Amino acid sequence: MAAAAHLLQSVSGRVGAVRMLLLAAGALLLSACAGMAPRDPLPSWNEGPVKSAILKIVADTTTAGAPGFVPPAERIATFDNDGTLWTEHPMYVEVVYTLDRIRQLAPQHPEWATQQPFAAAISGDRAAMNKFTEREFFALTANTHAGMPPPEFRQSVAAWLASSRHPRFNRPYTDLVYQPMLEVLDYFRANGFKTFIVTGGTIDFVRSFAERSYGIPPEQVVGTTFDATYAFEGSVAAVRIEPKLAALNDGPGKAVGIHRHIGRTPIAAFGNSDGDIAMLETTTNSPDSKRYPRLAALVWHTDATREYAYDRNTSVGRLDKGLTLAPHLGWHLIDMKRDWKVMFPFELR
Amino acid sequence: MAAAAHLLQSVSGRVGAVRMLLLAAGALLLSACAGMAPRDPLPSWNEGPVKSAILKIVADTTTAGAPGFVPPAERIATFDNDGTLWTEHPMYVEVVYTLDRIRQLAPQHPEWATQQPFAAAISGDRAAMNKFTEREFFALTANTHAGMPPPEFRQSVAAWLASSRHPRFNRPYTDLVYQPMLEVLDYFRANGFKTFIVTGGTIDFVRSFAERSYGIPPEQVVGTTFDATYAFEGSVAAVRIEPKLAALNDGPGKAVGIHRHIGRTPIAAFGNSDGDIAMLETTTNSPDSKRYPRLAALVWHTDATREYAYDRNTSVGRLDKGLTLAPHLGWHLIDMKRDWKVMFPFELR
Repeated sequence: MAAAAHLLQSVSGRVGAVRMLLLAAGALLLSACAGMAPRDPLPSWNEGPVKSAILKIVADTTTAGAPGFVPPAERIATFDNDGTLWTEHPMYVEVVYTLDRIRQLAPQHPEWATQQPFAAAISGDRAAMNKFTEREFFALTANTHAGMPPPEFRQSVAAWLASSRHPRFNRPYTDLVYQPMLEVLDYFRANGFKTFIVTGGTIDFVRSFAERSYGIPPEQVVGTTFDATYAFEGSVAAVRIEPKLAALNDGPGKAVGIHRHIGRTPIAAFGNSDGDIAMLETTTNSPDSKRYPRLAALVWHTDATREYAYDRNTSVGRLDKGLTLAPHLGWHLIDMKRDWKVMFPFELR
Repeated sequence: MAAAAHLLQSVSGRVGAVRMLLLAAGALLLSACAGMAPRDPLPSWNEGPVKSAILKIVADTTTAGAPGFVPPAERIATFDNDGTLWTEHPMYVEVVYTLDRIRQLAPQHPEWATQQPFAAAISGDRAAMNKFTEREFFALTANTHAGMPPPEFRQSVAAWLASSRHPRFNRPYTDLVYQPMLEVLDYFRANGFKTFIVTGGTIDFVRSFAERSYGIPPEQVVGTTFDATYAFEGSVAAVRIEPKLAALNDGPGKAVGIHRHIGRTPIAAFGNSDGDIAMLETTTNSPDSKRYPRLAALVWHTDATREYAYDRNTSVGRLDKGLTLAPHLGWHLIDMKRDWKVMFPFELR
């Protein structure tokens, strides 16, 4: 190495030599790679129409000179969380957290024993809980999510995630992220895309694990928000979450959330339920969708053996209207059973 | 080049040679740079305490192994817009836009001639306009900002910015961005920081020029927002801005906006008025401020010759409480007259 460097240095001078070495290194890298098969960026996906479509949208939008080329600043991909990036059955993880916290707080609230929705939550009345309206669920969150600064809430969620287990898989919920979707996140990012979560979950619940689990930083989580106030508490100034919903980031709220937090039309969007339809419409059918190629896809839970099978007839992650719309709108259905070789990262260990 | 490459290739094989060439190139680059004076990243700043503090916070937080080292993902710097990144006198640019639009729309609204705040806006009654409450100003914006999809609004603003001139400088408003602050934005970004605008202005007004003027993409603009709805309009699905304020991103609203849109405590924050106090407090005095070094600074308009001089006695960008607080809280005052060699980019052309 030293001999070669000296040789070049004496020929061309220092700066010229650096440039030549870099050029030589680049040329060698190219020739070294030319003979090899490229690494498959989606190794946990079976070959098929969805894998092809994902590879194609990235190639179409990132190949310099291609008609669909998208400047790096405009490369946005959005992902729902529950049921799209991790398991949402038998119950949304955030709901399980909320019920656990309610039970934990119950001794301080004897009045809850006879008051709905608290009584159902405390007694574990699954039938009653499955019928909770949004209003009832947010009556619970007023007691579990509000009244503290966001960092304190996130720590509470992180501690709970570290100690809780999924009832069927007996593993931490964060083990139940989908390996194929982690590969999709990485693949988009490796090609200059910013990846955002656009979730019906509350923003700080998802922020508490999104960076570690998905590589998605807090500023790229778009979620349901509460009112918040700002005031000195003792000697420090803190934002405090208030027990009142500010923006429900589900259904049409996802289109509004994308407008507020991102301000661009996604190139690609991934969801799994009817709550994601507006996000997918925003992607493929908004006023400027035609400017670039777009991709919309729905994870379809078809694998009762490795995960769960549900679509039109479930109250958790219902996919009904979306399943009907998808073929008409060119949206891809990710058929878990057909498309995914691997479900969870721990299968690879 | 070819000879050296062949020599190395025959010694070590192809992949080994690539690695050796890259190592040699790196070593040469380091030795080539060691003897040169580093380029001044803030050439439009006079030497002084503020320039030193900006250089120091970046060095302290980005030097590997330093006690204040901040991982790249946590490097956030926030900037107010009006009066911090561009000129806000004699009137906020967004207010000028709004009044121009009201006058443009007036023929379709004969009732405005006798109705406040419209009458004052149409007749150009500066004294009355300077006393507009926030409520009165937002009564105007209901007619100028709402009722359309955000891209349409941004196009309207962009067209107006292209054709309007500042009354004193007779230049487009976007010419009146502060060269020293552009250098600060670039310097933070070159050191792995994400730069955000946190503005009292409405989010899509600022997005309409922030990317071109500041290199700040729409997803890194935090601003005042309106309610929004989502619905099909003809064959496309669109978000439409509604004439109702959702979040006023000024004063305490800036702390809430940082929580909602960023979800991390900034390492550095730059403002210029009392409306930025909560953002600066959030930076230097929130529950996790002590974890890392922090910097807070206020642009102090002290240069009536090159720009404007105002602080405690103005209704546009008042800096009163902040001027009193700054020395007690270790916040830096950027004294335009003292600290800035150059005001606007066009001075360098």
